Amino acid sequence: MKPRNFSSSGGEWLRGTGPESDIVISSRIRLARNVDGYSFVSRMNSESRETLEVYLHQRIRDLAGKLGLEYRNLKEASMLDRLLLMERHLISREHVNMDGDRGVAYTAEEMVSVMTNEEDHLRLQVLRSGLQLDETWELVNDIDNRLAELVPYSFHSRLGFLTACPTNVGTGMRVSVMFHLPALVLTKQIQKVFQAVSKIHLAVRGLYGEGTMAFGDFYQISNQVTLGKSEEEIIQGFKSLVPRIIVYERKVRDRMIEDNRTRLKDTVSRAFGILQNAQTISSEETMDLLSKVRLGVNLGLLSDIRISRVNELFILTQPAHLQKLEGKDLDPQDRDVVRAQFLRKHLQN
Amino acid sequence: MKPRNFSSSGGEWLRGTGPESDIVISSRIRLARNVDGYSFVSRMNSESRETLEVYLHQRIRDLAGKLGLEYRNLKEASMLDRLLLMERHLISREHVNMDGDRGVAYTAEEMVSVMTNEEDHLRLQVLRSGLQLDETWELVNDIDNRLAELVPYSFHSRLGFLTACPTNVGTGMRVSVMFHLPALVLTKQIQKVFQAVSKIHLAVRGLYGEGTMAFGDFYQISNQVTLGKSEEEIIQGFKSLVPRIIVYERKVRDRMIEDNRTRLKDTVSRAFGILQNAQTISSEETMDLLSKVRLGVNLGLLSDIRISRVNELFILTQPAHLQKLEGKDLDPQDRDVVRAQFLRKHLQN
Repeated sequence: MKPRNFSSSGGEWLRGTGPESDIVISSRIRLARNVDGYSFVSRMNSESRETLEVYLHQRIRDLAGKLGLEYRNLKEASMLDRLLLMERHLISREHVNMDGDRGVAYTAEEMVSVMTNEEDHLRLQVLRSGLQLDETWELVNDIDNRLAELVPYSFHSRLGFLTACPTNVGTGMRVSVMFHLPALVLTKQIQKVFQAVSKIHLAVRGLYGEGTMAFGDFYQISNQVTLGKSEEEIIQGFKSLVPRIIVYERKVRDRMIEDNRTRLKDTVSRAFGILQNAQTISSEETMDLLSKVRLGVNLGLLSDIRISRVNELFILTQPAHLQKLEGKDLDPQDRDVVRAQFLRKHLQN
Repeated sequence: MKPRNFSSSGGEWLRGTGPESDIVISSRIRLARNVDGYSFVSRMNSESRETLEVYLHQRIRDLAGKLGLEYRNLKEASMLDRLLLMERHLISREHVNMDGDRGVAYTAEEMVSVMTNEEDHLRLQVLRSGLQLDETWELVNDIDNRLAELVPYSFHSRLGFLTACPTNVGTGMRVSVMFHLPALVLTKQIQKVFQAVSKIHLAVRGLYGEGTMAFGDFYQISNQVTLGKSEEEIIQGFKSLVPRIIVYERKVRDRMIEDNRTRLKDTVSRAFGILQNAQTISSEETMDLLSKVRLGVNLGLLSDIRISRVNELFILTQPAHLQKLEGKDLDPQDRDVVRAQFLRKHLQN
């Protein structure tokens, strides 16, 4: 399969058009599923993995027509292509680095992805722009139901879906809401959010999930409990928490504008000026500055750029995307120069 | 006298057209003179000061036609106008703040200025762009000779010219060369210059002379000895020192370019980007960033702005100039906002 061209546009979730998208970047739900009669992936040898991958690929192909899914075998894909898929949130970091036959199917607008032979045999994901928990759940649930007709899932009548890691047993569901919380970070109030979130047994993570750093003031909030609660109950938990975080961030933004509009405009304008002029820039600094620009656009303090463009730049300036753009591997130093070139080109007046 | 409009252009010395003007901003010589038969200024009461000021004003008027000098009485001038003259290096800080009748005459291109009733009765100054010690000396010497025909100077056959402060006795001459040494500052080698300079009894000062801080990587080097050496010998000392400092700064600039052109271009481009976008900015930060921009233009790393414009901005963004521009007193916070507006306007693409 010819890889899609990732250099010019981003997935649906980057459009920034969903509800509350000034603060909620995306809503994501993934379901972990395993196929009855097969060992978990970590216990399979390479032949069994290949057999299962072929089996799952065929089943997914039967779904593909209606959903517009295209399947790629990742064993054959280059490291760069795998990293590219990770940067777009289509596969996990583990899926990039593991060995053996495995693959991913995803739709053109990148809203749906299905990984095979990741930690579990199947990981179904729906990722949408803004706060759309019901819509996201409906879609992933629909795909899950259709796939269940083609694949016999490992299911235990008392425990629910069986998964490789006990923390996923039950619903096998992880809901992740990605927030952009620059005002809470700037005013050093983000810790209060962490405390509130951990009290109700949700986890806060960075941009690329478990074990990744929070760059660019992006924070993912995910459920930790998958057992003893229905999918609807888990989603309900988010529906009561998320609006409170949104209100908090928005209140702090408003207060910052009231207290010192000039200073805030100064911060976001300088960030824009540096992005427009730097000759070398790291990924971390880029995200930090783009975060301030994003805040500025959302507060009407900057008008030179659309929010969808800012969202895209977060992804397109990641290492694998830059290397894809240049058509070759780059060491970090060269990457920083190419990143600065790319930003200047896309942000010039 | 109607004050000249200072908001649009700077003095001749700001044009940056003189020899070695990438590193030597200006050459300045001032002569301290006192009038025979009068006490020193600090010992005069206000009536005597008035009498002397009228006397000197008349003598200067006799010179004015040929030189194009215009005279202003500073007792009548507002604080803002006095600060404006200081920011343009036409009068000293002491002359701004002292009381009583005193004045300044200066030419349209601001190359020549004559202060009356400063620390000494007369202070003659010539200030030229770049390294022009001989030309500067010729001109100030010529004015001194002409004035000597109209005013009897206090002169002692053994000591030379008598001055209020013993450190000026003899020639009454201070030579000051203003350097822009950003590469030596960035590479932390400026201390070596200080050491070399102090060994030969010259002093290093900031942008506005004695007791002022060095902002924007500007350093003035001045003689401390006025007694026991002729004017020509003092100038000769500068003529052997200055080229060595120029070579040193230039060598370090070249090495920086060789070692990491991208990093240097990054530094100067970011400085330009911040100046183009800031919404509030202090005088100190402005000078620091303009200094980097100046370095960038001189090294061919930035092409969006002429060096004369950069030189002007150093002066036009000073507090008094900004307030003159706005036509009113501004507190420091408002000044920082007006300064940023001014910079954006003059640096926009």
